[in-house]
Amino acid sequence: MLTGKQKKSVGTVPTQFFHFAHPRQPFMLASGQKLGAVTVAYETYGTLDEDGSNAILVLHALTGDAHAAGYNEGNVQPGWWDAMIGPGKAFDSEKHFIVCSNVLGGCRGTTGPSSINPATGRRYDLDFPLISISDMVEVQRHLIDHLGIRRLRAVAGGSMGGMQGLEWLARYPDRLKSAIVIATAAKHSPQQIAFNEVGRQAIMFDPLWQEGRYDGKPPAKGLAVARMIGHITYMSEASMAEKFGRRIHDAGRRHKFSRGFEVEEYLHHKGSRFVERFDANSYLYITHAMDSYDLSRGKELHQVFAGLEAQMLLVGFRSDWLYPAAQMRELARACKRAGADATFCEIDSTYGHDAFLLEVDELSHLIRHFLQKVAREPYEMRSEAP
Amino acid sequence: MLTGKQKKSVGTVPTQFFHFAHPRQPFMLASGQKLGAVTVAYETYGTLDEDGSNAILVLHALTGDAHAAGYNEGNVQPGWWDAMIGPGKAFDSEKHFIVCSNVLGGCRGTTGPSSINPATGRRYDLDFPLISISDMVEVQRHLIDHLGIRRLRAVAGGSMGGMQGLEWLARYPDRLKSAIVIATAAKHSPQQIAFNEVGRQAIMFDPLWQEGRYDGKPPAKGLAVARMIGHITYMSEASMAEKFGRRIHDAGRRHKFSRGFEVEEYLHHKGSRFVERFDANSYLYITHAMDSYDLSRGKELHQVFAGLEAQMLLVGFRSDWLYPAAQMRELARACKRAGADATFCEIDSTYGHDAFLLEVDELSHLIRHFLQKVAREPYEMRSEAP
Repeated sequence: MLTGKQKKSVGTVPTQFFHFAHPRQPFMLASGQKLGAVTVAYETYGTLDEDGSNAILVLHALTGDAHAAGYNEGNVQPGWWDAMIGPGKAFDSEKHFIVCSNVLGGCRGTTGPSSINPATGRRYDLDFPLISISDMVEVQRHLIDHLGIRRLRAVAGGSMGGMQGLEWLARYPDRLKSAIVIATAAKHSPQQIAFNEVGRQAIMFDPLWQEGRYDGKPPAKGLAVARMIGHITYMSEASMAEKFGRRIHDAGRRHKFSRGFEVEEYLHHKGSRFVERFDANSYLYITHAMDSYDLSRGKELHQVFAGLEAQMLLVGFRSDWLYPAAQMRELARACKRAGADATFCEIDSTYGHDAFLLEVDELSHLIRHFLQKVAREPYEMRSEAP
Repeated sequence: MLTGKQKKSVGTVPTQFFHFAHPRQPFMLASGQKLGAVTVAYETYGTLDEDGSNAILVLHALTGDAHAAGYNEGNVQPGWWDAMIGPGKAFDSEKHFIVCSNVLGGCRGTTGPSSINPATGRRYDLDFPLISISDMVEVQRHLIDHLGIRRLRAVAGGSMGGMQGLEWLARYPDRLKSAIVIATAAKHSPQQIAFNEVGRQAIMFDPLWQEGRYDGKPPAKGLAVARMIGHITYMSEASMAEKFGRRIHDAGRRHKFSRGFEVEEYLHHKGSRFVERFDANSYLYITHAMDSYDLSRGKELHQVFAGLEAQMLLVGFRSDWLYPAAQMRELARACKRAGADATFCEIDSTYGHDAFLLEVDELSHLIRHFLQKVAREPYEMRSEAP
């Protein structure tokens, strides 16, 4: 079987922008707060069928963006899920119309704390309202309406993308034929919250953070520490042992208290690269949205899935300790109890949480077959779009 | 069975100080660097037998100190292993003479980077030489000589204390009857190094760190972040879920991006309390020593234990993911292969790495029986002390 890399790319793809809401007709957040203007950065791959039946919405994780596949003009970096999206790949762009957008609160083209507040002409910074996973989904629903898609063939995402997938199921069950939900949780455990909170503290403790008003001089060191913590949690003990062991990096030690281990160099590199592309305030807003998320909101989890007609593919990874497979198993049990149509797969990967990006062959196999099954079933609206 | 808390305390105990080395007869580190004066803070509990046969050296972890049991004058805080040390407890102070000293490089009475450099009359700060686990043990050996102990009934410690125990076995096998080695590793995995390195980066990124010259104004925020990371790794997912769940703390949220979860409050509290008692440079020196440690130093692990006559009790905890039980199992396998006298116990605790401090009943049971067996065997020197 061909691996993702040997297959064709979707080629050069532009990031597009969709604008909606204005001060007299603002976008209402779940909290009751309002945004007078929303821009959504998105990309599409493939062609929408005449009947609009072949659309798949891909949902990104904490630090992802709209650039899921192919190449942006002048940029050699392929999209973050390029191994999975393209001609002949798991999300086959010759069969499906694939959409990916940057989340609300982000910093990669969609409105977030680093956007200009139309009311003041300056960056929002901390004047940006707190947002939720539900608000992110609501913005995506506006985009889907704009694109003329009444019912999605699938939503699909891992980690925070999986949370959005779950929220789509809960919020717009009639506008989905299926959901592919990978390596996520119905709500964060205290350990998941704890890792995020330490990252937030590192950012806010950086004197350059300046209560969020750091325009031009970001709290790069605090954000780098937050990212380093993240990268430890994305890998497994075994994958770190395999990738780095106790090998010493050619560059040697960076400071007196480092032995120059390769794993140290890896963290430094990941930390310093991240601050070039990510906004510290977005990190605060988005991690807060993740920690606050609670799919069942006080109900029992199975009640969320009661009466659901969408088909679900749930995937967990055995070595993922940030989003342990047990959390996916809990979702699967709730689906079963509700009589929902869910397939649960636990993949025996050593990649840890990163597996949702790296286990290309296993995931491709599962997703390709799942989408074939979904596509075979008749496309019909169970109710009118709102 | 009585738990630790219901038993008697060793009462009020003073911290004592032992001084050795001077500029013309310096203490030589394994690196070849020298210290012109060394002070060792230590406490003792119980009475040394006339033949000096009942001494146990207790070894502390990263942020521990000499105050292992009872109370210091004017301080209501019991020693860090008070549940285990005292009359009738696992380390029974009516039977054994128990010694605990602060490690070299520490900040709780023993010479470290915050000590005065006799050559300059100012704090060493980063002029303090890099130290190793082996140097810590060498300082302890000087103390033991000073106390007139030729052969220890046991050395005992968890986490970094366990590393010191292993190093005692490798370095002075003839001066030990036994070693109790808990929740540690023969060398750090890249994941263990990674967590330490992120903590170090948080400290060094704090502008108050000032290349270590922060006398009076320590990098409290960086050190707090390092400590918060530590505390996440000391607990297990299950123990966090049980202790905090997603409950909201009465004090509410500390900042805009916190929901005020109890787990957040716990981390804030632990972080801010830690900076009152611990020196940031010591954190850098000691974590560097841990990451650098490699018991077998290129040999195969079982060769370290070849010919060893000391008895060993090795203990791991199933939910400890910072020092996974697999690392203790590896040590046990190496002992078995070398024909050494080692008992390995894996305790089914949910406390994570903290279990070496919290699983008092299980540990007490194991250690009491182990020490009874060790004490029954004749006390004899296999060779003269150096």
